[in-house]
Amino acid sequence: MILPKNNRLTPEQVQEVTAIVAEFGCKLQPIVGALRTIYAIVGDERDELMINRLEGLDYVERIDRIQSPFKLMDRRSDLARHRIAVGARTLGDGLLVIAGQCTIDPKQPQFYLETAQAVKEAGADALRGGVWKPRTNPYSFQGDARSLEILMEASRRTGLPVVTEVMELEHINLALDAGVHVLQIGARNALNYSLLRQVGRAIAGRTQTVVMLKRSLHNGPLSEFISAAEYIAAFGNPNVLLCPRGTQPQLEGYRNQPDESITPLLKEKTWAPVVVDPSHSVGKAAYVPAAALAAVAYGCDGLCLEAHVDPQHGIGDDPKQAVTPAVLAGLVTRARALHASLRPARAAA
Amino acid sequence: MILPKNNRLTPEQVQEVTAIVAEFGCKLQPIVGALRTIYAIVGDERDELMINRLEGLDYVERIDRIQSPFKLMDRRSDLARHRIAVGARTLGDGLLVIAGQCTIDPKQPQFYLETAQAVKEAGADALRGGVWKPRTNPYSFQGDARSLEILMEASRRTGLPVVTEVMELEHINLALDAGVHVLQIGARNALNYSLLRQVGRAIAGRTQTVVMLKRSLHNGPLSEFISAAEYIAAFGNPNVLLCPRGTQPQLEGYRNQPDESITPLLKEKTWAPVVVDPSHSVGKAAYVPAAALAAVAYGCDGLCLEAHVDPQHGIGDDPKQAVTPAVLAGLVTRARALHASLRPARAAA
Amino acid sequence: MILPKNNRLTPEQVQEVTAIVAEFGCKLQPIVGALRTIYAIVGDERDELMINRLEGLDYVERIDRIQSPFKLMDRRSDLARHRIAVGARTLGDGLLVIAGQCTIDPKQPQFYLETAQAVKEAGADALRGGVWKPRTNPYSFQGDARSLEILMEASRRTGLPVVTEVMELEHINLALDAGVHVLQIGARNALNYSLLRQVGRAIAGRTQTVVMLKRSLHNGPLSEFISAAEYIAAFGNPNVLLCPRGTQPQLEGYRNQPDESITPLLKEKTWAPVVVDPSHSVGKAAYVPAAALAAVAYGCDGLCLEAHVDPQHGIGDDPKQAVTPAVLAGLVTRARALHASLRPARAAA
Amino acid sequence: MILPKNNRLTPEQVQEVTAIVAEFGCKLQPIVGALRTIYAIVGDERDELMINRLEGLDYVERIDRIQSPFKLMDRRSDLARHRIAVGARTLGDGLLVIAGQCTIDPKQPQFYLETAQAVKEAGADALRGGVWKPRTNPYSFQGDARSLEILMEASRRTGLPVVTEVMELEHINLALDAGVHVLQIGARNALNYSLLRQVGRAIAGRTQTVVMLKRSLHNGPLSEFISAAEYIAAFGNPNVLLCPRGTQPQLEGYRNQPDESITPLLKEKTWAPVVVDPSHSVGKAAYVPAAALAAVAYGCDGLCLEAHVDPQHGIGDDPKQAVTPAVLAGLVTRARALHASLRPARAAA
Repeated sequence: MILPKNNRLTPEQVQEVTAIVAEFGCKLQPIVGALRTIYAIVGDERDELMINRLEGLDYVERIDRIQSPFKLMDRRSDLARHRIAVGARTLGDGLLVIAGQCTIDPKQPQFYLETAQAVKEAGADALRGGVWKPRTNPYSFQGDARSLEILMEASRRTGLPVVTEVMELEHINLALDAGVHVLQIGARNALNYSLLRQVGRAIAGRTQTVVMLKRSLHNGPLSEFISAAEYIAAFGNPNVLLCPRGTQPQLEGYRNQPDESITPLLKEKTWAPVVVDPSHSVGKAAYVPAAALAAVAYGCDGLCLEAHVDPQHGIGDDPKQAVTPAVLAGLVTRARALHASLRPARAAA
Repeated sequence: MILPKNNRLTPEQVQEVTAIVAEFGCKLQPIVGALRTIYAIVGDERDELMINRLEGLDYVERIDRIQSPFKLMDRRSDLARHRIAVGARTLGDGLLVIAGQCTIDPKQPQFYLETAQAVKEAGADALRGGVWKPRTNPYSFQGDARSLEILMEASRRTGLPVVTEVMELEHINLALDAGVHVLQIGARNALNYSLLRQVGRAIAGRTQTVVMLKRSLHNGPLSEFISAAEYIAAFGNPNVLLCPRGTQPQLEGYRNQPDESITPLLKEKTWAPVVVDPSHSVGKAAYVPAAALAAVAYGCDGLCLEAHVDPQHGIGDDPKQAVTPAVLAGLVTRARALHASLRPARAAA
Repeated sequence: MILPKNNRLTPEQVQEVTAIVAEFGCKLQPIVGALRTIYAIVGDERDELMINRLEGLDYVERIDRIQSPFKLMDRRSDLARHRIAVGARTLGDGLLVIAGQCTIDPKQPQFYLETAQAVKEAGADALRGGVWKPRTNPYSFQGDARSLEILMEASRRTGLPVVTEVMELEHINLALDAGVHVLQIGARNALNYSLLRQVGRAIAGRTQTVVMLKRSLHNGPLSEFISAAEYIAAFGNPNVLLCPRGTQPQLEGYRNQPDESITPLLKEKTWAPVVVDPSHSVGKAAYVPAAALAAVAYGCDGLCLEAHVDPQHGIGDDPKQAVTPAVLAGLVTRARALHASLRPARAAA
Repeated sequence: MILPKNNRLTPEQVQEVTAIVAEFGCKLQPIVGALRTIYAIVGDERDELMINRLEGLDYVERIDRIQSPFKLMDRRSDLARHRIAVGARTLGDGLLVIAGQCTIDPKQPQFYLETAQAVKEAGADALRGGVWKPRTNPYSFQGDARSLEILMEASRRTGLPVVTEVMELEHINLALDAGVHVLQIGARNALNYSLLRQVGRAIAGRTQTVVMLKRSLHNGPLSEFISAAEYIAAFGNPNVLLCPRGTQPQLEGYRNQPDESITPLLKEKTWAPVVVDPSHSVGKAAYVPAAALAAVAYGCDGLCLEAHVDPQHGIGDDPKQAVTPAVLAGLVTRARALHASLRPARAAA
C-alpha cells in the first residue's frame, strides 16, 4: 500500500510507480478516498528491493506492508500443525520447563551434576548449562569446552535433554557431536545471519534436534524475530522455539525490560512455540517467580530458568539470577497449575 | 558502591559482604549519611563475578559502578594519544568521509566503478561497498564474493582505501587477502564476541588495517559499545572507529532512532574516533544531508554515507537511502565547513 | 555521591564542592579507591538545587542519588502501615477489582446501568465510568457532565463505590459534591502538578476518598511516579493508589507497552497499593484476560478493567477495549484464585 | 485500511464491517491481492469511534490510518501560508532565538534583569523566564507570582517579548493581564487537554499572542503532538510553535533523549514552526552548543535556550543547564550562520 505525501499522485508519478511495480510482476490499483487517494500493490509485494525502490521516491510518504515476510514460520503456513518435542515433552502439551546453571564451572563439575539432579527433582524437562559464554567484558571468563563433557554427563545421569548456547561454527559442531539436544542462539547473535545459516545447515535432517532462538536485545519488530527463525527453518528443519528474554533499554531495577507480553502477539503471527526466559528478563532471583508466572499468564509454552544448588558459589550470572532448587520446585508447581487452568482459553483461541 | 535496601546493613550483612569483596582483594568502607549508610568497595571493583555475587544478595538494592570496565579504549588510558589513519586522512585532522554503495551489484560492476569515481570527486576519503549483506529476509539477496573484486578494482582506479562489512571468519580472510583496508562490523554483529575476537586476532600486527564497529541496534549502555571495541583492541591493534548508526525502536518516519547525539558522551569515555552513519540512521536519502550536518554539530570525526550514481537502479538499500554524487558533494562541502568552524570548540574541550 | 570526570578532584575542586554542599548543611567525604576517588555527600542530599549546582560543575561526571526523594510514600515511612479501603475492600486483603465502561454515553444511560449491575455480578468491588474524557483528537467526544448523574445512579443501585477521571478543578468539585469515592488522575495529567495539588487540597480530611493515580505515558523513573503521589499526600490524605497502565512507545500490536512488571519494583520503594489497568495497557479486549493475570502474577493489589454489556455499541475506547461481563466474570475468578495462591509469597516478602 | 487476521474476510464479516462503516458515512472497497485481500474505507475515516469499533472486531488484525487527524495544523491546510511573529522576528525568516533563565529568583531580581540585558546583547529575539515551575519533588521551590513583575520589567528594559510557562487557568490570566507575549505549555502538560483548551480560549482574537507547545515526555506519535496544537488553534488563534525538548527514557548521560531529529518529520506533516529546546534535551550546559547546532542542522526555525549571567547562583535548573552570555553569544553566531547557509536547502524543500 503506497501512501503519497500529497493527496494523490500526479499522472507522471503514477506512471513511474506503475513501471517499478511491473518490474516485480505487480500492478497498481488506486483507492480513491474522499480526501486522499492511496495505491495498492496488487501481487506479491514481499520483494524488499521493490519496497526500497518505492520508499526511495520523493513523493512517497510511506509503504504499509500487508503481507507476511516469512513463509514457513507463518501461522497460516502448512507447517502450522508441526509439533516439536524436547525430550519427553511435546510443546503445546503441558508446560516445558528448562532449568539449570547460567554457566558450568569447569573446575567444579559436582555443582553442575548436583544442580542437574535437583532441577530434575523440581520438575524440569530439560537442563540448561552454559559451556561458552558471550560476555560484555573481554577480560571476564568466556567459558571452556571442557564443560561440554560435564553437561553431557549430567544428561546421562538424569536422562534429560540438554540446552547450550553456541556462538560459532566450531561450537555447533562440538555440541552436535557430543549429542546436545537443543542449540541455543543467544540474544547478541539473534540477528547474526551467518550463524543462523550455519545452525540451519547443521541441523537439517536431524529431526530430534531443536534450536532455541532468543530475541534480540532491542525491542524490534516481531517480524524480524520470526524471520530469524525462518533463516534456520529454510534449511529444512523447522524445530525452532522462540525465546523472549527481555529487551534494552532496561527497566530501571531489572536487568532488561520484561517482554513476556509479546507472547500473544507472536502467536497471532507464527505457529512456533514460545519459551520465555524470565531469569534474563528481570535479572535477579527474587523477581524470577513472579516473572515466570506472568509469562504463563500471557500464554507461553515453556520457561527457561536459571537455577543452581548454591547460587552464591556459581559463576557467570548465577550468583545474581539463579534460583535455588527449592524456589524452582515451588515455581514449577504454581506455573504448571496456572498453565493447566488456562487450557480452555487456549482451546478457544 | 553498595546501596542496601534498608537504611543500613546489619552487622551480619556487613560481615557477609566484607567476606565476598575480600575474595576479590577489596575492602568495604561504610559511608555514614544522615538517613542512610552506603558502602564503598575499595579496590578494583571491575570483576563482574564479584558484582554479580553482591547483586545476588537479598538485602542489596543496587550496585553503582564507579570504575570504567575497559582498559585500552578508556579516554584516560595510555593509548589516548594513538592516531588512526584511513588512507590519507588521519582521524581528528579534518573530517573523514567514507561514501559508496550499500551493496555492490555483481552483475553491474560499472555502477560501482562509476560511483567510486564520483564519490572521490565529491570529496570522499574512502569507499564503502557491501560485498556480503546481512538481510532480515532469508530469501533476499545476501551478497556475492565476486563483488570483492569489483571493490578492489575501484580502490585501484581511485587510489582510495575501501571499507566492507564482514560477517564471518571466511569473509575476514577473503577481505584481508584481497587488501581491504577497513573491516566493518555491522550493527547485528556488534555484540557477536566470537566475530570480534576473530577480527582482533586477524588484524593484530597489521597497523594499516582499521575496524569500523557499528553500534548495536538497541539503545544500550555506552560502556557496552566501548567494551566491544576493547575486544578487538585486546589482541594488539587498537585501530577501531566507533560508528553510531541509529537504534531501535525506530523513530516513526525514519528507519531507526537517530543517535548522533551520543558523540560527546562517547568522547568523555573513550579516545576512539567517532564516525557517524546518517544513512542508516534516518534511512531515506532526503533526510541524510540534515542528519550528516547534525552529526558534525555533535562533534563526530567522520561520516559514513551511502551514495550511488543511479540510486533507483541500485540494489540493497540504495534505492531508498543512497544520495546522488551531486547531493554528496554539497553535503561534504557543508559538513567540512562546519567541522572546520568547530575546531576552536574541539581544542578547548 | 559525586563521581568526578577524572580519577580524582584537584584540591581547588574539592574546596569548591565542599563550599557548595556546606551551603546546604552537608559535608564531603572522599572515598579513596585503587584507581579512582569518589566523594560522598554526608547529610540530607535531597535538595534538588544542591544537586543541580553540583551537576553544573565541569569536572563532575555524575551524581548518584542515594536517598529517597519522597517522605510520606516511602516504604520506610511511618505511613507504611496505613490501610486504604475502596468500598468494602481493604487494599492488600483480597484483590480489588474495579470495572466498568471507559465512557458513559449520556444518551444511553441504560447501557451504563446495565453494565454496572453486570460487573457487580461478575465480582467487581467498584465501578469505573468516564464522565469527562481526555481525547487526542480535539473534534472527538470529550465527555458530558450529565454522565455524572448516571454514574451516581449506578452507584446507588449497586451499592458499589465509583471511580471517575478528573481533569480540572471544576471536575474535582463536581465529582466530590456528587459523592464520587475515587478520583482518577489520568496518564496525560500524571505530572500535572497543579492538578495534583488541587486534588490533594480537595481531599484533605476526607478519609473515605481515594485517588487512583495513573502512571505517566513515558517509561520514566519510578521515583517520579511515587513523587507525584507524594504531591497529593503532602496535603494530608495519603489514600493514593498507583496505577500502571502501559507506556509509550507502544509495543507493536498493543496500544502501549505493558508495564505490570514494575509492580515488584514499586513495592520495594513505596507502601502504596498497586492497581494495574490491563485494558489500556494492551488496548484490545482479546488480550485483556492474559494481561490481567500477568499483573496478578507480578503481585498487584488490584485491577482496573474496562467492561461493557455491549462493547460494539459503546463509545470512547469501549468497542475496542471493553470485555463483556461473561469474560469479566471468568477473568475475575481466575485472577482472585491466582492472587489467593500467592498469599504465602506475599507474606514472606 | 482494514487488514484482516486471515487472508480475507468471510461474507458475514464483510457484511458486519460494511454496516459499521456505513453508520459513519463510509463505504468498503476490497483490494484483492495475490495472497491476501485488504479493505479500504472510502470516505472520511477520521472518526475515532468508527476506528475503535473496527479495531474491536476479533478478525481484524489492524487498521492503518491514511488520513491526517488534524485539520488546521496540517501542512496541506489553508493555514499553511500563515506567518507567526515573536517580537521583531517572523518565524521562517532568520533563526528565532529565545533565551533566559529557567527560573526567576524572586529574591534576586537583579540577576534576571542582568541576564535579560546580556542575552539581548548576545543576539536573542525574546526572553524566557520561569515564574511558575513544575517540579518533580513537591518540597522544591514551585515558583512565585512576584517573579512576573520582574519578567515584565525585563521586557520593558530590553524591548524584547517574553515567554513564560503557564500551568493552570490562573497563570494564563495573570500572564496575559501582565502582557506576556508567548505562553509556554510545558512537557508535563503537553497532553493536558483542559489546559490546552483554556489557553486556546484565552488567546482567541489576540493575534499578537503566541503559544510555545513543548513535546510530551514520551516518544509518542507525531500526530499526537500536532493534535495538541490543533486543540489550541481550534479556538481561532493558530499561533502555535512546536517545541521538541528531548524525551524519556533518557539517553544515559543526558537529561533526556535528544529529539531535534524529528524536525524534518514534523515539517512534512504540519506548517507550524519548530523551535527546539536543546537545554532540556541534554540537560547540561557543556552539551548545549552542540545540541543547538544539531537542531539547526535538522532544519528548526528557532531555539529556546537557558542562559544566566551567573549560573552557579541561579535556581531551578540554571546551575546545571544555563550557559553564560559569552557562550550564548558564540552559539547564536554559529547557529545563525549555519541557518543562513541552509537557506537554499529550505527553499528547495
